[in-house]
Amino acid sequence: MTDPRLTELTTRVPSLRLLTELADLIHYGRDWTRRWGPSPLAVALPGSIEEVQAIVQWASERQVALVPSGGRTGLSGGAVAARGELVLSLERMNRVLGFDATDRLLSVEAGVTLQAVHEAARSHGLLYPVDFAARGSCTIGGNIATNAGGIRVIRYGTTREWIGGLTVVAGNGQLLELNRGLLKNSSGYDLRQLMIGSEGTLGVVVGAQLKLTDPAPPAQTMLLALPHMEALMQVFGLFRAQLKLQAFEFFTDMALKHVLAHGAQRAIDADLPYYVVAEYDALDDADEQAALLAFEDGVREGWIADGVIAQSQSQAATLWRLREGITESLAPRKPYKNDIALRIGAMPAFLHEMQALLAREYPRMEVVWFGHIGDGNLHINILPPEDMQLAEFIAHCERVTRLLADTLQRHGGSISAEHGIGLVKRDYLGSTRSAAEIALMRGVRQVFDPSGILNPGKLFE
Amino acid sequence: MTDPRLTELTTRVPSLRLLTELADLIHYGRDWTRRWGPSPLAVALPGSIEEVQAIVQWASERQVALVPSGGRTGLSGGAVAARGELVLSLERMNRVLGFDATDRLLSVEAGVTLQAVHEAARSHGLLYPVDFAARGSCTIGGNIATNAGGIRVIRYGTTREWIGGLTVVAGNGQLLELNRGLLKNSSGYDLRQLMIGSEGTLGVVVGAQLKLTDPAPPAQTMLLALPHMEALMQVFGLFRAQLKLQAFEFFTDMALKHVLAHGAQRAIDADLPYYVVAEYDALDDADEQAALLAFEDGVREGWIADGVIAQSQSQAATLWRLREGITESLAPRKPYKNDIALRIGAMPAFLHEMQALLAREYPRMEVVWFGHIGDGNLHINILPPEDMQLAEFIAHCERVTRLLADTLQRHGGSISAEHGIGLVKRDYLGSTRSAAEIALMRGVRQVFDPSGILNPGKLFE
Repeated sequence: MTDPRLTELTTRVPSLRLLTELADLIHYGRDWTRRWGPSPLAVALPGSIEEVQAIVQWASERQVALVPSGGRTGLSGGAVAARGELVLSLERMNRVLGFDATDRLLSVEAGVTLQAVHEAARSHGLLYPVDFAARGSCTIGGNIATNAGGIRVIRYGTTREWIGGLTVVAGNGQLLELNRGLLKNSSGYDLRQLMIGSEGTLGVVVGAQLKLTDPAPPAQTMLLALPHMEALMQVFGLFRAQLKLQAFEFFTDMALKHVLAHGAQRAIDADLPYYVVAEYDALDDADEQAALLAFEDGVREGWIADGVIAQSQSQAATLWRLREGITESLAPRKPYKNDIALRIGAMPAFLHEMQALLAREYPRMEVVWFGHIGDGNLHINILPPEDMQLAEFIAHCERVTRLLADTLQRHGGSISAEHGIGLVKRDYLGSTRSAAEIALMRGVRQVFDPSGILNPGKLFE
Repeated sequence: MTDPRLTELTTRVPSLRLLTELADLIHYGRDWTRRWGPSPLAVALPGSIEEVQAIVQWASERQVALVPSGGRTGLSGGAVAARGELVLSLERMNRVLGFDATDRLLSVEAGVTLQAVHEAARSHGLLYPVDFAARGSCTIGGNIATNAGGIRVIRYGTTREWIGGLTVVAGNGQLLELNRGLLKNSSGYDLRQLMIGSEGTLGVVVGAQLKLTDPAPPAQTMLLALPHMEALMQVFGLFRAQLKLQAFEFFTDMALKHVLAHGAQRAIDADLPYYVVAEYDALDDADEQAALLAFEDGVREGWIADGVIAQSQSQAATLWRLREGITESLAPRKPYKNDIALRIGAMPAFLHEMQALLAREYPRMEVVWFGHIGDGNLHINILPPEDMQLAEFIAHCERVTRLLADTLQRHGGSISAEHGIGLVKRDYLGSTRSAAEIALMRGVRQVFDPSGILNPGKLFE
């Protein structure tokens, strides 16, 4: 630990746990993107809010850039430290602090994993409904930083809707208690909402009061095989009208191929281009009958070619694995990822343009797409050919992403649905937000972080 | 129209409708508060976004203060023009622009009334669930400016949750299209959410994309009479656990007295200190049976002294009128109003302190309170004695509000649940928001309105 800044920091915060070993710098310096070489100054692992405040105050005085860090499962480089920043990891601040049964608020530190939140909610007979595959590793602080979405948005909305209060250390080290769990509070700007989705650029989230809700009704899971892309929207429209959907996820045959090769169990014999995992309320026979009728309607219309209804919890888990295992099955290939959103009504026209664009621009590459069609959210994964250099591959994908961003802009879409902008999509922010909006965001950032130490370079330079 | 500024404005925007008659200045210069003498420079009634932009640009150049204005049903003075401001009324921009059935988004201009929104939603077989008694006069722009709540928050949340997109003219006249109806959009700061509840200080809302939802299930309405204050929370806990509440509103005997004197129909013979109007899902006999059981449980526990279940739509309307007619019944007496919020769990301890405070500080005055107990929101109305001057009355109420604000602060509450801060609660903002938060809000305001022309003096000076 030869850097004099670190000596000073440990003098200022004697109790602070600080890591400087190379293995730790690499481990904490990157997220699930693997595009940037991790190169942090050091890794601070504060154990209390006071330590976070002391670090931020010091960093602000000394102009040391900080990268707030959770589970680092992000896919946009928002938690990458590649420029000598101090990683401020919340990983030790991972306690569930308490539960208020009357207001149904679960108080947690920012470093608690999503799965631990689920378990704590369940232990009180309630549900924290935001959910996605990285649940075991991602932290609630990171979820808040990107306004995480996932597989239940169609029923429950995004993280934004489940935050009753936030405890935040602002860029000058001041502690903010935002909204404090109030259901109604019309007393000026809702800085809590401003903080959600700000990717660590406006403050360091150190704690949250999470709203819990009643457990979801008993559900049934169905896997469908569809003959063509149009059928995706048609079946979604049909199912949304006739069933109470809890999830409606789709993937392509290409995604199925990878997830099967990765060990998932084949659940349907059909060899068709599109698949859907639908989950819907199944309280009683009438609900199950309605699902069967919707399925038969879809078959009769020619939108559904084949299907399976899970007969048990374990079969439902098998069906879900086909969808949830995709990201993991692709990870060894280091895919380039797009995470885009549109209004659902804009989807059909966009999908046609997108398919033509991808076929034209990625002739030599495998393109795997899947996502949350009921939220207007698609994930596109491009796999590099074996014989292509990484830099060349990324450069090619970035050129295509520019074209995709232009197409999205024409259809009123967003270049980031739920992964955030981070470093990966910074150059495309202007396709989703106007110059006037970006100028206002820049001004807001300056207000919260006048020293420019909070995740600099992320979101916008 | 002798003011040279107005001559210049009409030269710049020749098509602009501008009112300068005294009656118009009075009409448009005040809201439902009656504490400030209306004194606007003039009243601009733009008919298009372009006209709004031109007015704001001009005002920004010439440093003319603007007061954005909707239905002026506000209770905090947020739409008062008492210092020579130009009133920018959105009242002519009151069209429903369109409906997107796939995304269930209703596009409206800001000046449309809440009732017109309800009707448009109904015409598409859907529901816009924010609702309160001023629905016929208040506008959606004003609802957005204060993040209006109302009687369905317990089921559906506040206005904040129903805004898919906002069209806003910022302080420099630039047009912002915020979020554009996307369900998922993690691309930087959510300026839409920042705008909601900002009381016209960050931009002029000119249009919105409102999310619609399925109509509420068939409901049953119950009126309950309760023997003491503790029973309010106890019955709420009981009903919330056993029924699917759509509303849970309470009022005191004092409120009942006024609303009956104002022509509402007596629906219950009991003469008890507290009353509740509860509305809950009643899809079938099982639901109705559950409601009867909950009622009987409450009676057995001694929390409910008497009750009525509406046997028809019209009887339900009669019961609702007892709650919804209160504000109107008090209006002729020009009450001083508090609109406070707490976590529900903080309510019992707070209520005791509050009651003691009100009894001690308002010995000569009628104190009428009621509200949304399930949201932690109370409305306190102080009626002036016949023989007291208005100024003396207000000064007295403000002294007591200071004590109330201190009490709220100790219990983690808010000085404004749903009415906003405006002019009325400006001096008490510091009881709800910390100095650090207010400094950040001040900075944000400066970013959006560098010329300081948007509703100056409101929220904070």
